Amino acid sequence: MTYRSPVADILFSLKAVAGLSEFIGAKLDGEFDWETIASVVSEAGRFATEEIAPLNRSADTVGATYANGAVISPPGFADAYRRWAEGGWGGVSAPSEFGGMALPHLVNVACTEIWNGASMAFALCPLLTESAIGALKAYGSKDLLDVYLEAMISGRWTGTMNLTEAQAGSDLNGIRTRAERADDGTYRLFGEKIFITYGEHDLAENIVHLVLARLPGAPAGTRGLSLFLAPKFLVNPDGSLGASNDLRCASIEHKLGIHGSPTCVMIFGESEGAKAWLIGEENRGLAAMFVMMNAARLAVGTQGVAIAERAYQQALEFARERRQGRSAKGGEGMAPIIEHPDVQRMLMTMKASVHAARGICHLTAASLDLASHGRTEAERTAGANRAALLTPIAKAFSTDLGDEATSLGVQIHGGMGFIEETGAAQHMRDSRIAAIYEGANGIHGIDLVLRKLPLAGGATARNEVNEMRDVARAVSERGGADFGATSARLSEAAEALDQATRAMQIWLSSDTESALAGASAYLRLFGLTLGGACLAKAGLAAQALAREGDDSELARVALARFYAEKLLPVAPGLNRIVASGAGAMKSYESVLADSI
Amino acid sequence: MTYRSPVADILFSLKAVAGLSEFIGAKLDGEFDWETIASVVSEAGRFATEEIAPLNRSADTVGATYANGAVISPPGFADAYRRWAEGGWGGVSAPSEFGGMALPHLVNVACTEIWNGASMAFALCPLLTESAIGALKAYGSKDLLDVYLEAMISGRWTGTMNLTEAQAGSDLNGIRTRAERADDGTYRLFGEKIFITYGEHDLAENIVHLVLARLPGAPAGTRGLSLFLAPKFLVNPDGSLGASNDLRCASIEHKLGIHGSPTCVMIFGESEGAKAWLIGEENRGLAAMFVMMNAARLAVGTQGVAIAERAYQQALEFARERRQGRSAKGGEGMAPIIEHPDVQRMLMTMKASVHAARGICHLTAASLDLASHGRTEAERTAGANRAALLTPIAKAFSTDLGDEATSLGVQIHGGMGFIEETGAAQHMRDSRIAAIYEGANGIHGIDLVLRKLPLAGGATARNEVNEMRDVARAVSERGGADFGATSARLSEAAEALDQATRAMQIWLSSDTESALAGASAYLRLFGLTLGGACLAKAGLAAQALAREGDDSELARVALARFYAEKLLPVAPGLNRIVASGAGAMKSYESVLADSI
Repeated sequence: MTYRSPVADILFSLKAVAGLSEFIGAKLDGEFDWETIASVVSEAGRFATEEIAPLNRSADTVGATYANGAVISPPGFADAYRRWAEGGWGGVSAPSEFGGMALPHLVNVACTEIWNGASMAFALCPLLTESAIGALKAYGSKDLLDVYLEAMISGRWTGTMNLTEAQAGSDLNGIRTRAERADDGTYRLFGEKIFITYGEHDLAENIVHLVLARLPGAPAGTRGLSLFLAPKFLVNPDGSLGASNDLRCASIEHKLGIHGSPTCVMIFGESEGAKAWLIGEENRGLAAMFVMMNAARLAVGTQGVAIAERAYQQALEFARERRQGRSAKGGEGMAPIIEHPDVQRMLMTMKASVHAARGICHLTAASLDLASHGRTEAERTAGANRAALLTPIAKAFSTDLGDEATSLGVQIHGGMGFIEETGAAQHMRDSRIAAIYEGANGIHGIDLVLRKLPLAGGATARNEVNEMRDVARAVSERGGADFGATSARLSEAAEALDQATRAMQIWLSSDTESALAGASAYLRLFGLTLGGACLAKAGLAAQALAREGDDSELARVALARFYAEKLLPVAPGLNRIVASGAGAMKSYESVLADSI
Repeated sequence: MTYRSPVADILFSLKAVAGLSEFIGAKLDGEFDWETIASVVSEAGRFATEEIAPLNRSADTVGATYANGAVISPPGFADAYRRWAEGGWGGVSAPSEFGGMALPHLVNVACTEIWNGASMAFALCPLLTESAIGALKAYGSKDLLDVYLEAMISGRWTGTMNLTEAQAGSDLNGIRTRAERADDGTYRLFGEKIFITYGEHDLAENIVHLVLARLPGAPAGTRGLSLFLAPKFLVNPDGSLGASNDLRCASIEHKLGIHGSPTCVMIFGESEGAKAWLIGEENRGLAAMFVMMNAARLAVGTQGVAIAERAYQQALEFARERRQGRSAKGGEGMAPIIEHPDVQRMLMTMKASVHAARGICHLTAASLDLASHGRTEAERTAGANRAALLTPIAKAFSTDLGDEATSLGVQIHGGMGFIEETGAAQHMRDSRIAAIYEGANGIHGIDLVLRKLPLAGGATARNEVNEMRDVARAVSERGGADFGATSARLSEAAEALDQATRAMQIWLSSDTESALAGASAYLRLFGLTLGGACLAKAGLAAQALAREGDDSELARVALARFYAEKLLPVAPGLNRIVASGAGAMKSYESVLADSI
């Protein structure tokens, strides 16, 4: 069960799929060079492989534990976290004036995958902190930034997102946590939040809670929500830590997976109220929260990639060592099961899924970088729109593939996969949350169809489809026989996606029910096709390298072919599912009645 | 989390999909009437709902425990098992001369679903016992039958299947457990078996182990395996229990799911050898074992149906009660999430999966009954061939759907689904073993393609495809508008299956690699299409009832339509995956190398 961070694959994807080197040259005027980035990613990989990954099993078996308001992290987490923070890893893409490395977000996403592949339960703490930093940076006052930002970027303090309440999960309209104005310009919070990841722990000196709450007289629904910052320990004017705030962790959950990550019930304001500071304006908390959520959504998509890669590596190692049955190739004795075609199919499906989802996450991150650093307003707007379009796909498609790949990992292990000590089942259990949190995946289908397809009058989605067509054309023109039917299958898939997109865009103004009925199938079709394009781009880049004399990457062509011939052919069927609209669901009440 | 056995749905499927009433009338000369069968199934449902289902949660949290060679079953299991045995449920399809009810196997499969829906962990004990009874009945000597059969059918003693060893899982060639001949005509066993379900427990007085082992000088491989019976307690001539045999449970496994079912390491022959009796002939153990395995495979497929139904009921209840977001219908306040189209899609997918897989399992069981009770040799052969063809599909497709449906059940629960106390995650964990044991599902794909497609010169498979075409035609001729595109989608799927079948049959003699590369996709295509035909048959039967004045079953038409329009459209894509052959996998060694 040795695991190593897939540094070379990630770097290849950054270059060949997301175009990082072009980005560096063209967009940031050479401020970062490729060697710097490659060495940062490699060092992250080394740290994760050596110091975090070995803790992942015991984090599952021991888990985070709770006693008397305190949470004890799993064995080794506190030490590893300290060294992680000392390495400056909390600030990969943070501004240099607050101690960050100020690297592109694309590099940050590469590192996010690396931490999560080593241990999802560990990496959730930085993931949430980074999201909190994002919201604070975008909407926090200068005073708040001065007190909190450097400490959070350095990893000395961590951050949380306090949104969910028992009656308000996917629907934030129902939030009841109450805020009151104090005389000194601060606020007091009263209420109970659930499912708060790393709401309490022993990894860092302080915990900075970002909390959605409602002021007296605020409008109903999400337009009456404000975002507050409430630290676990109040901060003295000199930056040292003062008294405990009026907030506590009441319990942690007993979960299917990510046992090492404490999921807390947080209680605010049992006596005088938790002291809090407003972030942004009153009743405008949702805008700030969306900054957090968008960053977190891409990061969660990246978790899907990471856990699939981890499961793949373990299944591959097992398949090379476990001997059962005769090889189709002949030979004496029992063969390693990797020689059986169905095991090859499962392993290649896992690997192709990892590479496809990784490519989509990288494209999304590159678009975010373009949105921030594009040379022109038009370039920045296009980047922002593309990131908005791709974020629900990066989140939902990648996490669905994470579930599928980790389940295949269990299957490859056979009976051993069902035994907890093997570790394969842990990946499946850990993975399962990613399709649920940061917006259950069905909600991302709705987001994609209702909010993202209309962007730029539909041009953002059209451009994306056209880019996939271009890739199919390029494979047909210069890919050659090794790509097999890649161009044909990718073209068909792109046409299916184009048809489905047109159907959706018509329904948006005429038949929302049909649009909603097909939203999940549409997202799947989009992700499946875009993933195929990412793999084909990687294959073409490998061939270009080979023409320069380096043929070490050519297996990427065969991987693209596998994906195109063995996974992509269902794309036209997905279009037909979308096209069938809502008719099949009109009788849902009688179908879902108890009587049949 | 109330659960009720789906008695009405099961009875409808027995009649409308598997044709039980025709079978009763035509094949068994009225020996069983429909009312008897309906009352047996109803009573099984009542017992399971009231006495077994409530134990399922604590069976998961407490589990089976091990101490000093003994296994303690979860709270309530021993009592429930005693009452289950007293009810005669161990003998639903067993011969009446040994105390059985002698009902058709189809009724037995109905009951198997009922026990497993109530608790998979509990139901595994009867499942294994029944398989052992099957092998004993088919190959045991009269002496053995006289000593063991009545006690096993009555449930006083239970049975096990001892196949797997650490080095021999899917591949029985590697079995090393050794048998020696004793002077008295009995044998002595020496060896270690793993993954022995209910190898030790406190539910019954005695445990009858069926053990695959190798005699001195036996041929290598599976042709040198013999099947033995070794009881936990030796049986005195008067039928009372004597000394302990030389066998013991050394430990039980810590598993992902089915915690209530002890999975044992069994050690045979630590001193003088475990006393054992031969079943059938020396070195012919595999034939007897296949009798057990075939019965167990259909039963495991039925577990997939059962656990999907259980997860569906729980998700449905949650979706009716949990309120989040506005309804598409409008209205004040938060709506039950069942009003959201994507939740409807997930629930209907779960329900359609249950009904499709149930139909396939029932068709398989009906074929087994025809094989036993057909009026002519030709009828019996056709029944046996059809059962052989459908068994791998019933096993693998149903258990894959079980995994998918239970995962959807978690998803519908949102964050609560990830919390163990909710219980939704347990179904997903319990379900996961079914695609692994009794032959990992990939092996059933191979079995279907290599061994089952050639049956009767290919006629068995052709007939099956033609039956699906007939259903599509019937829907087109008399189904009407409520079926939507059911006939069109089912026809397309049947043609896709026909093409894939032809491709496979050509490859069987020319290109085994391509046949193996597409075996899993082919099995999926077969199951998906056959499932659609089962649902359409049920819909047609519901319309026939409505014409007689009973319109209470008409929602089955809408369920068939949902399946056809929302799940079946990927069938042509699956055919294209099959058709692409092994080309995409030829480079597997470089694709699965560490270097990319």
